[in-house]
Amino acid sequence: MTLTAAPETTSAYDLGSARALACRECRHEIPLAAEFACPRCFGPLEVAYEFPTVTRASIEAGPKSIWRYKDLLPVPSTVEQHANTEPGLTRLIEADNLARALGVRKIWIKDDTGNPTHSFKDRVVAVALAAARELGFSVLCCPSTGNLANAVAAAAARAGWDSVVLIPSSLEQAKIVTTAVYGGTLLAVDGNYDDVNRLATELAAEHEDWAFVNVNVRPYYAEGSKTLGYEVAEQLGWRLPQQVVVPVASGSQLTKIDKGFTELGTLGLVEPTPYTVFGAQATGCSPVARAFEAGHDVIQPQKPDTIARSLAIGNPADGPYVLDSVRRTGGSVGHVSDSEVVAGIRLLARTEGVFAETAGGVTIATTKKLLEAGALDPDAETVLMITGDGLKTLDAVSGEVGPTATVPSTSAAVREALANRG
Amino acid sequence: MTLTAAPETTSAYDLGSARALACRECRHEIPLAAEFACPRCFGPLEVAYEFPTVTRASIEAGPKSIWRYKDLLPVPSTVEQHANTEPGLTRLIEADNLARALGVRKIWIKDDTGNPTHSFKDRVVAVALAAARELGFSVLCCPSTGNLANAVAAAAARAGWDSVVLIPSSLEQAKIVTTAVYGGTLLAVDGNYDDVNRLATELAAEHEDWAFVNVNVRPYYAEGSKTLGYEVAEQLGWRLPQQVVVPVASGSQLTKIDKGFTELGTLGLVEPTPYTVFGAQATGCSPVARAFEAGHDVIQPQKPDTIARSLAIGNPADGPYVLDSVRRTGGSVGHVSDSEVVAGIRLLARTEGVFAETAGGVTIATTKKLLEAGALDPDAETVLMITGDGLKTLDAVSGEVGPTATVPSTSAAVREALANRG
Repeated sequence: MTLTAAPETTSAYDLGSARALACRECRHEIPLAAEFACPRCFGPLEVAYEFPTVTRASIEAGPKSIWRYKDLLPVPSTVEQHANTEPGLTRLIEADNLARALGVRKIWIKDDTGNPTHSFKDRVVAVALAAARELGFSVLCCPSTGNLANAVAAAAARAGWDSVVLIPSSLEQAKIVTTAVYGGTLLAVDGNYDDVNRLATELAAEHEDWAFVNVNVRPYYAEGSKTLGYEVAEQLGWRLPQQVVVPVASGSQLTKIDKGFTELGTLGLVEPTPYTVFGAQATGCSPVARAFEAGHDVIQPQKPDTIARSLAIGNPADGPYVLDSVRRTGGSVGHVSDSEVVAGIRLLARTEGVFAETAGGVTIATTKKLLEAGALDPDAETVLMITGDGLKTLDAVSGEVGPTATVPSTSAAVREALANRG
Repeated sequence: MTLTAAPETTSAYDLGSARALACRECRHEIPLAAEFACPRCFGPLEVAYEFPTVTRASIEAGPKSIWRYKDLLPVPSTVEQHANTEPGLTRLIEADNLARALGVRKIWIKDDTGNPTHSFKDRVVAVALAAARELGFSVLCCPSTGNLANAVAAAAARAGWDSVVLIPSSLEQAKIVTTAVYGGTLLAVDGNYDDVNRLATELAAEHEDWAFVNVNVRPYYAEGSKTLGYEVAEQLGWRLPQQVVVPVASGSQLTKIDKGFTELGTLGLVEPTPYTVFGAQATGCSPVARAFEAGHDVIQPQKPDTIARSLAIGNPADGPYVLDSVRRTGGSVGHVSDSEVVAGIRLLARTEGVFAETAGGVTIATTKKLLEAGALDPDAETVLMITGDGLKTLDAVSGEVGPTATVPSTSAAVREALANRG
């Protein structure tokens, strides 16, 4: 079966321009539904579209959130009329100080810490919730230890839905609070994160009204990351950057940014200029980077051991597709040590006033490393994805930064301290 | 001297439509400069303008930040061309769940947690920095224990300025980190917050290139809060709300939102419909609320004792002007206990998925109390100002929220836990 087969709109659902779910492996298509695996080959399903005519003007006249791109997402046409967190349209800032520090001609920072719960997860969860409502679900669920748990609990609260968030019972109190405060059902599960994940898959099969955003509605959820690509292009004045560096956890975000760029070109919203996609991982969880280095197509799972916990997925579902994107566009996947991650966080904060979580440190440090290795072109305009907030991973830097000096409460003491700064 | 005196533009500075500093007490005017007290009566100075023609269309075509209102601020016309944090244009969300919970016809939440360092301080600091640059300063400074310190350090980093932030040396490590990470000069001062403030005033007088945002450039800094009023009106479709509830620390924000609403009416950008301004304080630091209740014009200072530390200013400089705004518009100033603050944070998070810092809890809880007292009209459209982020005051709720249940890793255990939720 090929993509040129006449599309049939058998769906009873209003999911905008989404017309089917297509297997990424065998390209078999099934009608839109809460499915994530191909019934023929068990490959991952992805949303296929039949896009309407979309213009720059129609997008620019839309809401100041990801819903300005609703015609390109698997969501009902009335999506913005339901209470939602209104994520997206976060800042894209010219990072000239960072560019100078790294010796790059032009760098832009896509600062997704400005989202409602301060990570890009608000984007994917908002799309998952909108699709889940149309598909007949009424409870929003996920297994997570951090950003995703925050985003799901907040989005459900705002929508008036119940939520069920599963976390390992060993999670620190501070991380529990940031989800529990939204008042949904928060279950601390005795077991490690793998146990929690297995339990989520089991529960998704048992509860027909439970939408696990990253399990049974994953194909819709994942599409939310395309909006990062759309926004970058729009904010650059409707054009594609030459290079983009994206942190890799499951790998979904990187592949969807790539997909977003490609779609904009196909739709005539931007010139389809060439771009190169780079992936960034922490050495302590670098299965995709290692496969890239070894020239493999298959990902060898790794037991994560890194401070970049939001990227700590040892067996990334979209790893092979990350390799495809990166190889197709002439990029690569790098990895950095935990101490480089901390240095990356500090460099970004010092140069641009953006305080990123550990994943952001991974992106900055990997960019530096890829430049040094000659993989990244210092003369090409480069966008770096900062997808989460430093306030959520304070531990990473708390031993590293502190007051310049402690002084008595006199101006003479201040002058002396400043003179001694060197 | 009256405001009808022919304005003279004696300033050598390009500070946009700002034409002078005017005393709020005796209306004496002086040329634009880094002054904050009237040379005649020592009253506080405020920026006076001669506004150009501004249209809705010209604003809407501007940057997606506070700089869309640059013609109404004391900043150079080229302000957005200098690297800055690009604050503002944060979400205004319809809070129907909260409105139902409180029994109000219509509530909107202005969610300023979406700013670069997640509080409204990014607005005022950005304006202060822009004015300070034009006034010849080169170091950005403040005394602060929290949001302001974050905002100053981040803004200076991004602008490539040095910063000097003064904090009490007793501050907890986690709060130190969120400023220290930006890499400016952070001085831990042996003494309490009053000592730190006194030291700041002394240092401002001694260092001609140091701009203490809330001391020697305070008149410019304060104007940044007008943008909260401008944005609310624009986001409502260019009209004023009927009621607004604003947390009161120094009182500056409330008076500037009032000023912003009034200016929009005068400029013909909105119909000058009547609106009522309400102030919100924590009982443990409620000098303005107490003066309001007692019918006084003078604020009796209070030693703060509340978890709402970002509002803990015992002798608020703009307290009398808050009383003026509130009385002129028919509003009032309420206050709530610390336990009500926590309940307010939880109510907002549960109903709207917005996790506010303690100041936000003060706003929500005071709104509830003013409704119960009959001061706030439940049939009037009401905007609540949420000006800072819950991630910065986790301690306030960490003892109050937690997992619904802790369960073994089986779906049967989950079902049982859910059945027992009640």
